[in-house]
Amino acid sequence: MTRDNLRIVIVGGGAGGISAASTAKAIAPQASVTLFSEFEDVAYSPCGIPFVHGKEIPSFQNLFLQQREHYERIGIGLRLETAVAKLHLKNHTVTSAADETTEWDRLVVATGFEYESPGVPGETLAGLHYVKNIRRAMEFDKLLDLVKRVVVAQATPLGIEMAGNLAHRGLEVHLVDEGAWILSEIADPDIAQPVQKSLEELGVTIHLGAKVLAFAGSDGKLQAASTTAGELPCEVAIIATHKRPNNLLAAEAGLKIGSTGGVLVDDHMRTSAQGVYAAGDCAEIVHGGTELPIQGLSGSHAYAQGRVAGANAAGEDRAYDPVYVPWGMVGGKVQVGGVSMGETLHKALGIPHVVAVAEGISRARYYPGVTKIRVKLICDPGSLRVMGAQLVGGEGIKERADFLAFTIKRGATLDDFAWMENVYSPPIGALMEPIAVAAQAGLAKFRSQG
Amino acid sequence: MTRDNLRIVIVGGGAGGISAASTAKAIAPQASVTLFSEFEDVAYSPCGIPFVHGKEIPSFQNLFLQQREHYERIGIGLRLETAVAKLHLKNHTVTSAADETTEWDRLVVATGFEYESPGVPGETLAGLHYVKNIRRAMEFDKLLDLVKRVVVAQATPLGIEMAGNLAHRGLEVHLVDEGAWILSEIADPDIAQPVQKSLEELGVTIHLGAKVLAFAGSDGKLQAASTTAGELPCEVAIIATHKRPNNLLAAEAGLKIGSTGGVLVDDHMRTSAQGVYAAGDCAEIVHGGTELPIQGLSGSHAYAQGRVAGANAAGEDRAYDPVYVPWGMVGGKVQVGGVSMGETLHKALGIPHVVAVAEGISRARYYPGVTKIRVKLICDPGSLRVMGAQLVGGEGIKERADFLAFTIKRGATLDDFAWMENVYSPPIGALMEPIAVAAQAGLAKFRSQG
Repeated sequence: MTRDNLRIVIVGGGAGGISAASTAKAIAPQASVTLFSEFEDVAYSPCGIPFVHGKEIPSFQNLFLQQREHYERIGIGLRLETAVAKLHLKNHTVTSAADETTEWDRLVVATGFEYESPGVPGETLAGLHYVKNIRRAMEFDKLLDLVKRVVVAQATPLGIEMAGNLAHRGLEVHLVDEGAWILSEIADPDIAQPVQKSLEELGVTIHLGAKVLAFAGSDGKLQAASTTAGELPCEVAIIATHKRPNNLLAAEAGLKIGSTGGVLVDDHMRTSAQGVYAAGDCAEIVHGGTELPIQGLSGSHAYAQGRVAGANAAGEDRAYDPVYVPWGMVGGKVQVGGVSMGETLHKALGIPHVVAVAEGISRARYYPGVTKIRVKLICDPGSLRVMGAQLVGGEGIKERADFLAFTIKRGATLDDFAWMENVYSPPIGALMEPIAVAAQAGLAKFRSQG
Repeated sequence: MTRDNLRIVIVGGGAGGISAASTAKAIAPQASVTLFSEFEDVAYSPCGIPFVHGKEIPSFQNLFLQQREHYERIGIGLRLETAVAKLHLKNHTVTSAADETTEWDRLVVATGFEYESPGVPGETLAGLHYVKNIRRAMEFDKLLDLVKRVVVAQATPLGIEMAGNLAHRGLEVHLVDEGAWILSEIADPDIAQPVQKSLEELGVTIHLGAKVLAFAGSDGKLQAASTTAGELPCEVAIIATHKRPNNLLAAEAGLKIGSTGGVLVDDHMRTSAQGVYAAGDCAEIVHGGTELPIQGLSGSHAYAQGRVAGANAAGEDRAYDPVYVPWGMVGGKVQVGGVSMGETLHKALGIPHVVAVAEGISRARYYPGVTKIRVKLICDPGSLRVMGAQLVGGEGIKERADFLAFTIKRGATLDDFAWMENVYSPPIGALMEPIAVAAQAGLAKFRSQG
């Protein structure tokens, strides 16, 4: 089989699927590339949805990156509003819900994620909303004009974004989370604290150590959330629970599923079946630091995995490295982020570590717009190699998380960061880079202890 | 001699001198540490001066980091307004202009820089100003309230900052430079172009390929600059010429001076004389990429060198690495920066290179405040190891320059950057990091050529 007569089928139209399709077509222009999606649209930015609800972005139309005509023009067959019901690995076909059969030589599974069910009574009431599909978001946005009170279940990154944006829109927002602090599964308490303060300043009421017990309503419409912190009257609720790999089709077809629930892939995004690849939130990926499998990464990761899966499906030989997971977001008006795991998770997993932490500043101390930047570096106690990082501040968090992910992956130590060169220019950078300040603080501490 | 009875003398009160003094005192608290400065103040930020003139920062008082009492409290002897006239290497003393003699066991030379003389008639006219000392800046600022027209000689980083700030203050500004584009000695034309456009939008008139021939005046007061681009009436002129190492005392004393005019130091900031160190703009430093000596680095570099010199003078054994020189600044309303040399300098020095260049974006395409970020990576043609970088955009330039300096120093290649993980979050980062976009563009180009 040459590249030219390959039939490549992609199941899923999110970041992973669409990048797999585009990459495959770029590499094998004569190949047949067909993408199935149960939804009406492809190539929009779901990550932008909270900000349209918050009126930071004027319209949902802004979120569309490409029209479907673009994909048709470059020769990708789009089968929208066409759910795939079954993957057949032996006879190399997929069957649609309408029982139509399509043959493939290479298959890319990019079926994305589903939100964990809250598992409480009242889940079918009108007013409960999952942030995912853009058409549902458009309908929900109209509803938001008619309501006053909203409960956001769980202080996950999405929950934080929705809480902040809906408060910014003027709604009364209650954020309910079981953790002892917000973002507790990814951020350390001292890192999450400024975000919590900023959300509260925006008017969000935060209920920590609390849990939704039931959603209550009448005539099928939500009226309140019963929580361990009391009854919270509300007309809408955002279910911002964990994302779980959508492995349904893959598991039914017999593809091996990993311990996280994600489709197992090797370093070429190959699944357990010959000619079948997976990419994005449906797959599990090796974490570079611990070599443990993880899932639920970012849209940027899905996109990168789709490129590798699509390229390999089209005949290339590309590897996808274990991930160090730089992350970052805006919570309230504060930027927060990190790389790999924080102090809390290292502790929970029993990984020996020491912590270097300090507050630096983003510009010259006297320059308007200067903000504090707290940097925490979690290090191997012997080598002082940095294993993870946590960051919070007013600006420059994403760029520092990218920098730290790149260098942590390559073995950078506290010494490397402590003496790094940095730009100094009053409007854009302080005399000492906050990462270097944290590293120096760590070295001073560990040397005086040693 | 133990650390405790060391007599450490520092000549110069800028970033290099003050960090040398503070570090030495921290390491050897019982040692005698004396710092001489011809000026009235220490520990202010000269880099902030243009922004006070521009009214971005309310007062010169904001620029002071510490009062002199701080240094006296921590036990540093400050000899302000005390110019040193001579360094005696054999008998280990310095002599002040008032002929007072001070003995030392370790000497740190941190005599800073001087602006190159414009070398034209009229240099002594009142109205010509060199941006350096804060007291002179305070006086000059009062003069700025009384004048309308200013000529800035040379589109150096300082010239660009002064031109932009004085235009922002409402003055009529003419910027005169011999280069074919602004910042021509550090930035490539495509990188400088957005800065030039922004300055012009602020109202700066830029005269390129032009030179000041003379300053003219009457009664000792400036009235115009005669330039190859015509007569430019002005009441004040900023002489933003190159910085030259102030090597006068060092050379007279017999310290070896390097090819750039900077005091020669080894990797411990040791000069050619036993017990004598140098730090900051008076010294020349090895450039990591080319192993050539360079001078005229940033305040951050001076500070770091002062720490090493001060620590070693107090008995430590610290090395200072060759530099890769991340730089960054704001010109007009645009951020510009880079690492090591750009395309133009690689070409001028005959260093074989290929160029990867692309424009990315700083946030999601649809998010308010998003700006283009142009990234250019100058690479070794064989290994595709990145040797230098140039950046221009609306935000995040300093952080990217720091990142690139750190990783270029450690041998990062286009492949490393092309597949880097990055944060994706609409308000703070795009789906693909601009550095990765540039690296991918380069790989696509070189692979299709190869």
